[in-house]
Amino acid sequence: MRPTTALRRTLLLTSTALVLGLAASFAAAKDKPKDHTSGPAAAYQPSMTTLGELNVEIPGRREGDPVMTQEEYNAANKMYFQRCAGCHGVLRKGATGKPLTVDLTRENGFEYLRDFINYGSPAGMPNWGTSGDLSDEQVDMMARYLLLDPAAPPEFGMAEMLESWKLIVAPADRPTKKMNDIDIDNLFSVTLRDSGQVALIDGATYEIHTIINTGYAVHISRISASGRYLFVIGRDALINMIDLWMETPATVAQVKIGAEARSIETSKFKGYEDKYAIAGAYWPPQYVIMDGDTLEPLKIKSTRGMIYDTQEYHPEPRVAAIVASHYKPEFIVNVKETGKILMVDYSDIKNLKVTEIEAERFLHDGGFDASKRYFLTAANARGKVAVIDTKTSALVSILETGGQTPHPGRGANLVHPTYGPVWATSHLGDDTIALIGTDPEGHPDSAWKVVQTLYGLGGGSLFVKSHPTSTNLYVDATLNPDAETSGSIAVFKIAEMTQEEPEYTVLPIVEWAGIAEGQPRVVQGEFNVAGDEIWFSVWNGKDLESAIVVVDDRTLTLKAVIKDPRLITPTGKFNVFNTRADVY
Amino acid sequence: MRPTTALRRTLLLTSTALVLGLAASFAAAKDKPKDHTSGPAAAYQPSMTTLGELNVEIPGRREGDPVMTQEEYNAANKMYFQRCAGCHGVLRKGATGKPLTVDLTRENGFEYLRDFINYGSPAGMPNWGTSGDLSDEQVDMMARYLLLDPAAPPEFGMAEMLESWKLIVAPADRPTKKMNDIDIDNLFSVTLRDSGQVALIDGATYEIHTIINTGYAVHISRISASGRYLFVIGRDALINMIDLWMETPATVAQVKIGAEARSIETSKFKGYEDKYAIAGAYWPPQYVIMDGDTLEPLKIKSTRGMIYDTQEYHPEPRVAAIVASHYKPEFIVNVKETGKILMVDYSDIKNLKVTEIEAERFLHDGGFDASKRYFLTAANARGKVAVIDTKTSALVSILETGGQTPHPGRGANLVHPTYGPVWATSHLGDDTIALIGTDPEGHPDSAWKVVQTLYGLGGGSLFVKSHPTSTNLYVDATLNPDAETSGSIAVFKIAEMTQEEPEYTVLPIVEWAGIAEGQPRVVQGEFNVAGDEIWFSVWNGKDLESAIVVVDDRTLTLKAVIKDPRLITPTGKFNVFNTRADVY
Repeated sequence: MRPTTALRRTLLLTSTALVLGLAASFAAAKDKPKDHTSGPAAAYQPSMTTLGELNVEIPGRREGDPVMTQEEYNAANKMYFQRCAGCHGVLRKGATGKPLTVDLTRENGFEYLRDFINYGSPAGMPNWGTSGDLSDEQVDMMARYLLLDPAAPPEFGMAEMLESWKLIVAPADRPTKKMNDIDIDNLFSVTLRDSGQVALIDGATYEIHTIINTGYAVHISRISASGRYLFVIGRDALINMIDLWMETPATVAQVKIGAEARSIETSKFKGYEDKYAIAGAYWPPQYVIMDGDTLEPLKIKSTRGMIYDTQEYHPEPRVAAIVASHYKPEFIVNVKETGKILMVDYSDIKNLKVTEIEAERFLHDGGFDASKRYFLTAANARGKVAVIDTKTSALVSILETGGQTPHPGRGANLVHPTYGPVWATSHLGDDTIALIGTDPEGHPDSAWKVVQTLYGLGGGSLFVKSHPTSTNLYVDATLNPDAETSGSIAVFKIAEMTQEEPEYTVLPIVEWAGIAEGQPRVVQGEFNVAGDEIWFSVWNGKDLESAIVVVDDRTLTLKAVIKDPRLITPTGKFNVFNTRADVY
Repeated sequence: MRPTTALRRTLLLTSTALVLGLAASFAAAKDKPKDHTSGPAAAYQPSMTTLGELNVEIPGRREGDPVMTQEEYNAANKMYFQRCAGCHGVLRKGATGKPLTVDLTRENGFEYLRDFINYGSPAGMPNWGTSGDLSDEQVDMMARYLLLDPAAPPEFGMAEMLESWKLIVAPADRPTKKMNDIDIDNLFSVTLRDSGQVALIDGATYEIHTIINTGYAVHISRISASGRYLFVIGRDALINMIDLWMETPATVAQVKIGAEARSIETSKFKGYEDKYAIAGAYWPPQYVIMDGDTLEPLKIKSTRGMIYDTQEYHPEPRVAAIVASHYKPEFIVNVKETGKILMVDYSDIKNLKVTEIEAERFLHDGGFDASKRYFLTAANARGKVAVIDTKTSALVSILETGGQTPHPGRGANLVHPTYGPVWATSHLGDDTIALIGTDPEGHPDSAWKVVQTLYGLGGGSLFVKSHPTSTNLYVDATLNPDAETSGSIAVFKIAEMTQEEPEYTVLPIVEWAGIAEGQPRVVQGEFNVAGDEIWFSVWNGKDLESAIVVVDDRTLTLKAVIKDPRLITPTGKFNVFNTRADVY
């Protein structure tokens, strides 16, 4: 049986609103027009800290262009990078949002732009003017700004990286053994999005061991192969390397690798444990391999190049997810706009060998199957998943998920009662969860096919989660505009997947958190090391109370609510062991 | 004994004038100010055919910039790409000439630029104004133009390549066997530089079999592994594929791969004979792999990226020499400005694997050692040669040649009486010829070291040449400003290289050609298939008589002079067998 009719109706509305994928964050913004720059609504706002310095001369000024003073241009440019670039692209080539290159903006003209900025559109463009976010003068200024050529964002090469690099505690000065009694394998690194911090929370006692200042809106945490070092990267491309052996874990090295970034990973292949870290930037379009002990940047590689299918040059191919192969000394790097998956051989970085697999455009996030041999990664705007065999470094398959804008995170692995090992992804754009067979030897007929589609709470889902010891699959609906939906989690019993359309249990996480103020959203389940409890973030506005809700996986009942004034806007959580060993 | 004192004095002057390497072509230009756009003097002028379309809006105009009409800007922009870009770079980042980015031009200011363009400099900048090449108004216009941002040159991706692609005779419509009685192995493909043609000349009868229209100033000819197809590429990036089996060899396919280019090669590894061609472009900075039967472009790869040492982003890393490995299915691609040698594995071009070897900046030309295992390539402005082991795809050595601006072409291999197998390069910037040991097994002490330095006719040398059956080493001095020097060839007896400074015999090639008018330059010796005679081009102005002089290698006497009204500005010559088998 599907969810109730009333709920389904909400979901379908949601699906429509979410057709443009991440437009969800803007759809959400409309619900809270006054709070666009903090809290969940501002999900795609880049860091302001990196943008304060922007002060460029007006480029490409032509006769007849709307008059704009240098001061206005600088203000507009800063505002563009803060509010617009996340969706429309640093170079205005479009991404989640439409392209805003001058050929298009000039064709549409000033009044069209002004009205569009003012009133927004149902396709996901926020009503910046009527919401009160921007004044009439600011809307007018932004419309004039868009008629001018984009300012060239600055490059960020080795000189800039070295300048930003801080070796706070040199390897020789670090402890030679673990100096604390923290159960590191069961530690959780929790992103405190809007405060620019991570909280390290004990997986057994729920105690906050420490809060560490980081870049803005840490996108992910990754753990070195030994489990000692925690790496986090902010959207502002600032990396912190945290030593978990110190009496109180703290940052031992820091480096900035660009203006905007999303991904970091560490070398995991035997013989290379803790040797290298790698990070990928949105701007400049590049990745960098760093020393695993110090974050010293060693090798920068640009991703600028041809789109895989049209073979047209793309100036801004952003680096999305990066994972480390367990089969070879290779990093697997998703390049978004060109649709290429790079197998980066780190065994000799002076003579870097890269195999560039033609996959599909808009590669975003992904994870391994349970065997850790196959890497499944979503080409989100194309509704597809590409599968890489990390043992042969080759593309195995590209398949359609059947849903709108798959957003797997790292995905979830479970053993389906009918189809054997499958990997799951939910979707940003609708309420479906696709289960994809991942066992070509044991279940060849199911391999790399959607063997079953589940129907969850609604569109706007960001993450699914399971665990080898769990009998459940958890699905959030974080970006769903409906408060009850975004505040809940759907749980499917794996055993019931023999049914064509299995039902799910709804966990009222926000209700359990006991938070009345705001519209907190539930995001990203993460298991503890034992796999017997799962944590969810209750992500509220920056000035409102947030929480982490701990659920007993075996009974699906509330186990604990972690609240603390320091838990500001918690989002992603990364259990050290599960992250290190790619258990998900 | 060294050359006579009088001659040496000339050489030293030359060396100074040639410190800036290719500036030699401009130094030469000063000798003939009225003939700057045709003949040898214009050696680095890009094709006009590709530039006629340039018509761009004025970029980056700022308040206070010198006033310039759109018409003036277009005229100046066209002139820049015709006269200046070859040395100063398409993006004005500098190469052989100085950078002309606006930060520098604005600091120097209008009057400085105007005077510099007008009077030139001893470092190699031609005196465009006082030579009469440009009018006062044009000099003034160019100085104003340089204060404005460079126009962005257009990209050239798959769409543009496919549009330019002409399959003139499809494979099915071509002969199934050789339809002529040409001894293909002894055919010479001769670049007729300024007429935009190649001449196919019989190596035995000296008869011109045919003249084929090509791109402008064909830079090189390459032969498919089977020996059937001849590929030539013009500086305007137009490729012709010529079928040597046809009754009269003719172009069967054509494609343009950018705005400016230098290199083409074909796949040679066993199993891949005649399967692929590859070409490298100066603009856009990229290479393209094509179908070896049709020139259909298959895979384009941008070379934009980081400079190997500073790891600073370079927007215009030009592709210089490309060779095909005999040991692996790999192309070896020199990327000039970033100093990287790319090992491009063509066994799976959908999943292209590229190993990027950090070598040295300003990689230019090079060739194999006699065993064809090692590739030696000059980093010309750095005075170095990098050595790649094509069996292991790794860098073996980077060594200094001891001379100014090595320009090996493909180099020359000979067996030195003392040091065993060596590879030779002459220099643009002085009169030295460096002999580099290439036999790490038989002569480990000499391997990858300059074992001997010879002193030739003078600076401005472009090519050295020998042959496995020859006992001589030939060295030209093509770009030397002294007419007698540039009109002669120095011949060293290999047997005499036991002496510290062996003497050379001077062959008065221009005198033998019997050409009195102009200042013809002798360039590029090329052996016939038997290795018993060597051909030299006598390269005169476009409207003057040129010739090819054939020398008996055993007696060093004149054997024949090939003259024909159709032989307009002959430069490079490529014997089919020697080129195909990398014999040089």
